[in-house]
Amino acid sequence: MMNSKKNAFYAQSGGVTAVINASACGVIETAAKSKKIDKVLCGENGILGALNENLIDTSKESKTTIAKLKNTPGGAFGSCRFKLQDPIKQKKEYERLFEVFAAHDIGFFFYNGGGDSQDTTFKVSEMAKKLKFPLQCIGIPKTVDNDLPYTDCSPGFGSVAKYVATSTLEAGLDVKSMAETSTKVFILEVMGRHAGWIAAASCLAASNQGDPPHIILLPEIPFEKNKFIARVKETVKKHGYCVIVASEGTKTKAGKFLADSGLTDAFGHKQLGGVAPVISSMISKIGLKNHWAVADYLQRSARHIASKTDLDQAYAVGAQAVKLAVAGKTAVMPVIKRLSDTPYKWQIGTAPLKNIANIEKSVPRKFISKDGFAVTSAGRRYLNPLIQGEAPTSFKHGMPEVALLKKSFVKKKLKKF
Amino acid sequence: MMNSKKNAFYAQSGGVTAVINASACGVIETAAKSKKIDKVLCGENGILGALNENLIDTSKESKTTIAKLKNTPGGAFGSCRFKLQDPIKQKKEYERLFEVFAAHDIGFFFYNGGGDSQDTTFKVSEMAKKLKFPLQCIGIPKTVDNDLPYTDCSPGFGSVAKYVATSTLEAGLDVKSMAETSTKVFILEVMGRHAGWIAAASCLAASNQGDPPHIILLPEIPFEKNKFIARVKETVKKHGYCVIVASEGTKTKAGKFLADSGLTDAFGHKQLGGVAPVISSMISKIGLKNHWAVADYLQRSARHIASKTDLDQAYAVGAQAVKLAVAGKTAVMPVIKRLSDTPYKWQIGTAPLKNIANIEKSVPRKFISKDGFAVTSAGRRYLNPLIQGEAPTSFKHGMPEVALLKKSFVKKKLKKF
Repeated sequence: MMNSKKNAFYAQSGGVTAVINASACGVIETAAKSKKIDKVLCGENGILGALNENLIDTSKESKTTIAKLKNTPGGAFGSCRFKLQDPIKQKKEYERLFEVFAAHDIGFFFYNGGGDSQDTTFKVSEMAKKLKFPLQCIGIPKTVDNDLPYTDCSPGFGSVAKYVATSTLEAGLDVKSMAETSTKVFILEVMGRHAGWIAAASCLAASNQGDPPHIILLPEIPFEKNKFIARVKETVKKHGYCVIVASEGTKTKAGKFLADSGLTDAFGHKQLGGVAPVISSMISKIGLKNHWAVADYLQRSARHIASKTDLDQAYAVGAQAVKLAVAGKTAVMPVIKRLSDTPYKWQIGTAPLKNIANIEKSVPRKFISKDGFAVTSAGRRYLNPLIQGEAPTSFKHGMPEVALLKKSFVKKKLKKF
Repeated sequence: MMNSKKNAFYAQSGGVTAVINASACGVIETAAKSKKIDKVLCGENGILGALNENLIDTSKESKTTIAKLKNTPGGAFGSCRFKLQDPIKQKKEYERLFEVFAAHDIGFFFYNGGGDSQDTTFKVSEMAKKLKFPLQCIGIPKTVDNDLPYTDCSPGFGSVAKYVATSTLEAGLDVKSMAETSTKVFILEVMGRHAGWIAAASCLAASNQGDPPHIILLPEIPFEKNKFIARVKETVKKHGYCVIVASEGTKTKAGKFLADSGLTDAFGHKQLGGVAPVISSMISKIGLKNHWAVADYLQRSARHIASKTDLDQAYAVGAQAVKLAVAGKTAVMPVIKRLSDTPYKWQIGTAPLKNIANIEKSVPRKFISKDGFAVTSAGRRYLNPLIQGEAPTSFKHGMPEVALLKKSFVKKKLKKF
């Protein structure tokens, strides 16, 4: 009897998250139950794994290891920042891809990433159509930035939101207790170069009037130094301290990033980024002792304080991607649809991949207070459900237990690319 | 019948920790069971609360709220960075203290802080002796820096150690997955101006050869740029990526802090600190894409990832302080005594407060590898038990639940100081 099963290709792309491996787990576990999918072969380092024929055979991993992916931050199979060339101008990369897919009997293509990555998924699907190559191409959404269109929220965001809100609450209590004789202002820099969703999520730290964060700086609102400094002074006068959460993408009216405001080191070399030290410098000038933190990768890898809602959604989009592919769909992406805020109800919908890279969802004005420094109740209503629920990881010897993959590579059948 | 009970004064001093309130809880709950202690009155903002007669009556708080102190980071009663003047040269402050103690029938003095704060406790005890004022003065150890003498470890350290090790593990997985096409080096800056215990604790993230952190920078080991850069290059070549954990106090042979290496902003103003951006700048110059994080207050307030061992010890020293005071002891401090590494066994001992401020315990050379970039197995053996066990907090609406104190102030009896 002929084996009608085909292998599936799965890869991770772009900046990773605390829960992207939960999507991988959703793909692998669901594919294992499918009558149409044989093995899930994962590209090492995203699409590069396909180009270089570096394919990790997940059937060689134990079920326990695959389940542990849900507890493992980062991209377990390696991710990449690599854009395929334009298929019209330069077909070589695409031809190679299909050569690899043919050699390894791949009939399903799952690409787990943000807007740019889904543009790749779309281009692969177009090429498959053109070549009459039977390949179901499904995007799996992921980004901590929460800026993907068509989906109510992006898997990966809820966990960074929970991390940032928790850290704001905790550090807020710290600075509050120091403020009388020491640190009066604390600045936390978070990710978000173009959209301020992560900084906005810090609003969830506050449960009472006057609670931190006192000032949120978003890329959506032009930074005005005088207005900002006045608000810092006012806050310290009123509450004794001031907690600021700043998006890395905070910029002036002229569109100049604060982080690029020209720090130079002792050798006159331009110093890279960090909006927090720039703001700290401003605040030191008005004589207020301050401290600053830059969460950077800590925020997007903090699986230990992941949101259960986010983890569930990340798994669900992975699982649904397989179902869509098996049902013959292509050039689509499962998305999160919100059915209600309170109680929070969601389900999985489907969105087309076409044009996905051209739409970036920033924080709508109605979610931002009139003065630009806070989040409105409409914003809180949107954000709050996304951090609900805890998803504790297992610990061993005091440390989180993560999946240790064997990474058994499929035997190469082709020449080096 | 005459009431033979006396009130107790408790206050928090210096930089706060994720578990200092657990010590407060230990004091309050144990005092409640004592036949010699009436109320525990907490100084608002440390010793300032005594000087200004701002005393919070903990008997007005519910038992549930007091129990929740164990879940609450920061200093719930406010801390201070304030050194009493020398009692020989300037007696005014000490006279005021005893005036307040007399007015509020205080017979027990508990001061929760680091070396400098315990020097204060000692001075208060000396003055009490001199004035023949019946006051049992007990220090309660606390510092994230782990540099207190006489004690095997300092309450507060184990939790920051667990946070830093967990963050290193998580961010390490992140950068590992990005390294092929993007970020190759990640730098995490942690606290520790004079002692590198916190940076050293990041070694616990590694469970296998080659695991992050690949380089640890300690104040104990003079920073040599060429040697460091060579090691970074070597590590990237070998593992594909490099994770560095740097103490804020990393300094050159000449004793110059790297963080003070002269960053200036666009206006020519000197930019404050951050060893991570300075190292990032060095690494960018050799053409390696890198990211950096500064944990700052996030690390010392991260109650959500506290060590159960640390939490238990913080509570125990608070409880024991009360027992020592009630037993008539003064000018002492309960300390942690290690009985064995594996299995980890500890008990509470007692140390004198005299001279405590003059001894700072740095990381011993035998805990540091020959090349100065790693922690030896002896170091791991010491550090490992301190992060054991998890102490999950309760969550409400997706956020950690913390104690919300009523802060009922005792009616003032004296004139303003």
